Amino acid sequence: MARIVMKFGGTSVADLDRIRNVAARVKHQIDRGDQVAVVVSAMAGATNQLVAWCQALSPMHDAREYDAVVATGEQVTVGLLAIALQALGVDARSWLGWQVPVMTDGAHGVARIQRIDGRALMASMQGGQVPVLAGFQGIGPDDRITTLGRGGSDTSAVALASAVQADQCDIYTDVDGVYTTDPRIVPRAKKLARISYEEMLELASVGAKVLQTRSVELAMKERVRVAVLSSFGAPDDWSRDGQGTLLVDEEDIVEKEVVAGIAYARDEAKVTVKHVPDRPGVAAAVFGPLADAHVNVDMIVQNVSDDGTTDMTFTVTAADLPRAIASLERSRVAIGYTRLMTDTDVAKISVVGTGMRSHAGVASTMFRTLAEKGINIEVISTSEIKVSVLIKQDYTELAVRALHTAYGLDAA
Amino acid sequence: MARIVMKFGGTSVADLDRIRNVAARVKHQIDRGDQVAVVVSAMAGATNQLVAWCQALSPMHDAREYDAVVATGEQVTVGLLAIALQALGVDARSWLGWQVPVMTDGAHGVARIQRIDGRALMASMQGGQVPVLAGFQGIGPDDRITTLGRGGSDTSAVALASAVQADQCDIYTDVDGVYTTDPRIVPRAKKLARISYEEMLELASVGAKVLQTRSVELAMKERVRVAVLSSFGAPDDWSRDGQGTLLVDEEDIVEKEVVAGIAYARDEAKVTVKHVPDRPGVAAAVFGPLADAHVNVDMIVQNVSDDGTTDMTFTVTAADLPRAIASLERSRVAIGYTRLMTDTDVAKISVVGTGMRSHAGVASTMFRTLAEKGINIEVISTSEIKVSVLIKQDYTELAVRALHTAYGLDAA
Repeated sequence: MARIVMKFGGTSVADLDRIRNVAARVKHQIDRGDQVAVVVSAMAGATNQLVAWCQALSPMHDAREYDAVVATGEQVTVGLLAIALQALGVDARSWLGWQVPVMTDGAHGVARIQRIDGRALMASMQGGQVPVLAGFQGIGPDDRITTLGRGGSDTSAVALASAVQADQCDIYTDVDGVYTTDPRIVPRAKKLARISYEEMLELASVGAKVLQTRSVELAMKERVRVAVLSSFGAPDDWSRDGQGTLLVDEEDIVEKEVVAGIAYARDEAKVTVKHVPDRPGVAAAVFGPLADAHVNVDMIVQNVSDDGTTDMTFTVTAADLPRAIASLERSRVAIGYTRLMTDTDVAKISVVGTGMRSHAGVASTMFRTLAEKGINIEVISTSEIKVSVLIKQDYTELAVRALHTAYGLDAA
Repeated sequence: MARIVMKFGGTSVADLDRIRNVAARVKHQIDRGDQVAVVVSAMAGATNQLVAWCQALSPMHDAREYDAVVATGEQVTVGLLAIALQALGVDARSWLGWQVPVMTDGAHGVARIQRIDGRALMASMQGGQVPVLAGFQGIGPDDRITTLGRGGSDTSAVALASAVQADQCDIYTDVDGVYTTDPRIVPRAKKLARISYEEMLELASVGAKVLQTRSVELAMKERVRVAVLSSFGAPDDWSRDGQGTLLVDEEDIVEKEVVAGIAYARDEAKVTVKHVPDRPGVAAAVFGPLADAHVNVDMIVQNVSDDGTTDMTFTVTAADLPRAIASLERSRVAIGYTRLMTDTDVAKISVVGTGMRSHAGVASTMFRTLAEKGINIEVISTSEIKVSVLIKQDYTELAVRALHTAYGLDAA
């Protein structure tokens, strides 16, 4: 017997048939003799509709009211899934964030879980009941509903697994695991049986959309075993062992590859600030106001200048670009630049692997491979286990395929 | 300055434009200098969708889960209305049943409000904020969400008005008041400026759909002044005085009519149990099992018999008919009847007025009027201030129109 948290995303509960399918999947796990708690997202599309209503009434809406509205998406699915489980003879009940409680900070709309009181849920499981927890939501210090930001249900699941001391947290999604890259671009991409927390964290933060970055951080910190599994597939495929991808400590991966995967992101924008006076404090003058405007800056490059000025180039998400431009235009005089250039026709390609720590030449392989395909690199940024480059968006697929082959990741 | 509770039903918040209109209506009231609390229903259609999902997953679903699911309808509208009010510069916040709290009994799906703690809401209003309360919902002794049954938001509003010691509870709906009868049937129906609680209670319980019966009971018990007003109409019409219909004590109506109004209901069904042994205890044998099956029986007639048997005829709502039939078939042997007949082709026509207490001849006027139109009366039932008859459904409009004229209710 094991204690398992099973998490199902929005596409897995998109309609009543899929909710029934999830209920059957949970029953299968119960029938193995496991104790199970379930975390669910809103039905696919529901959250978008609710967000759109808030936006339409007021672009600058009160985040506390936004939270009350959008949290209803998960409230609907937990009730429906509990009903579907009961219809299969499985004792189940829904739990909302405030009922558990799932305590968060007060940052409405982007709240962080501070503590989950797991006692009631553990008692429920020990009594043979399946608690069905609304993902994405909690309760803030103001006793009002909070939400965790998009994709937050993954984080809810990992936090719950930690709170109830679960043996494993199974994240069911519309893919059947973590791949060396996007199989839609590279059909010969391989599913990884295991990946280290660090690699998954880098992959998630550079564009692989399988898991929310924060959920991986939390799993790494709390040592929660996380598996990524497909929620589709027939009952015959439901024997969990050996399927999907398991997130583990680096030392638990026996045959380590140098590179674990290639990720890409097309929702970036490049910003260049031309002819900035080349003197101390100018970077702070550029990036201080951006931080104040809550713009996340990713890659940063500063060109050396001949004439006492310099060009600063950096990337932000496309969604943040309007805020970034507004901020920079406000501080034009303070910074003293002559021109502002932006480009959304870019893609970020990243190569991730803990093997880079001990293997030289990963970056140079990347640059050589892209050069051979005639792809120009606009910006480079590196971390201990990652190399990212910015290229023209048209070359995304070509770059990903070439790199996948160059690092020997293609399936036989 | 007055303290006003304003309640808006589902059609009044059916889409974002109507929610904006409600916000403007609330602002108008605030601008008069009043303290305002608002109660809203779910967007029209939302509750039906949520109920249908629960039904589809399991006709015998857990009422606690049903409550968690359907209560989301009101949760969405309170958040959206708070955002719309803030967009107009009105300080507002949403309140869910569990936040106030609105304490109910544990009868999930048909809960009754036991107590509303009005302190937080009064403090909010005194601080210049508009509390926007989710109607139809509360929290049960099990710390789970409860709902009050269809139309329960009217009751929420009246209970809230009592809890915060409001001067008046304004129920905004898609009609502009209580009429002497349905204006769709009788274009010359008159709007009543005032109606007594007792008359409104009888009218609500015999088919007038303006207010939920329980809300009128509560208003009468707690002496809450209730006004029924239209939520449509242009800003020019928003001066509240002298519009709509006010529910008052009988003694506050100066010029009393004998008959206040004519109501009709087409969702009734007639059941006849033939050849029941005419002996003591047989009524209990028929109606005991029906009560156990939660079937509400309305009109009851027992015919005198020649042959030691009797026929019992009674009415139930059409929705309860399948349950009534099942119950009677189970107890066929115990009752000893020979035949069960049912008829859904019936309508109940009711004449209501406190004046009946002091005026004789109201019932005979009704019978004579129907006879003159050739309408056969199948069942009669009376109360102190009401006479109801069951007729063939086809004659509904004819009967209502003839009675409206006969009692002198037609507008000049």
